[in-house]
Amino acid sequence: MSLVDWPNLDAQPGPPGVTGTSVVGTQLAAAVFHLGPGAVAPDHHHVSEEFVQVIDGSVELTVAGAVYPVRAGQGFLLPADVPHGATAGPGGCTLLECYAPPRDPFAAHPTAKERPHDGN
Amino acid sequence: MSLVDWPNLDAQPGPPGVTGTSVVGTQLAAAVFHLGPGAVAPDHHHVSEEFVQVIDGSVELTVAGAVYPVRAGQGFLLPADVPHGATAGPGGCTLLECYAPPRDPFAAHPTAKERPHDGN
Repeated sequence: MSLVDWPNLDAQPGPPGVTGTSVVGTQLAAAVFHLGPGAVAPDHHHVSEEFVQVIDGSVELTVAGAVYPVRAGQGFLLPADVPHGATAGPGGCTLLECYAPPRDPFAAHPTAKERPHDGN
Repeated sequence: MSLVDWPNLDAQPGPPGVTGTSVVGTQLAAAVFHLGPGAVAPDHHHVSEEFVQVIDGSVELTVAGAVYPVRAGQGFLLPADVPHGATAGPGGCTLLECYAPPRDPFAAHPTAKERPHDGN
């Protein structure tokens, strides 16, 4: 068991304008992402079910081709294998994401490693 | 897939001073809890691994008998079956929790249903 002091963990680079950190458990993993204004997390998918909570700011989630605006205080439940991506709002955003089964989105470049969405 | 607009979901009662709402998926579940100043979530344990993020305010988590102060922006990873409880700080707190395997902490009274900690 462990305290997770996100601000003191080393930030990992993601796509341009995106940094974050993850903590990987046995049954689930958690990650915090910081997206600058308008930063884009490209569409990707993975076998983990995912819950995204918007901590600060706002984001447009693209989920299976549909766009959902999500703001601080709201969340989104993403089933396994559904293509999804994110575009931060004009003030950027901070996202908390949990995954089960656990995955580390920063193990490599996640969108390269984990089956970038091919449009199908 | 679905947007989770926590403030518009019906709040479920918990222990005194505690309300919340949960969303249960296939591989994980998520819940938001609001604890009033000094409100206590009694020690309990469950088979799900849990990640707790403090969204607002501060809380003292009791984990296997040790006390951890956790403030907004920090989280805590709780392995399965570890007894844990929470006491909100003087300003109360809002917690986001994720569980895998999924569990609904409001399905009944969770601390009554799910093996309240017996001190062992």
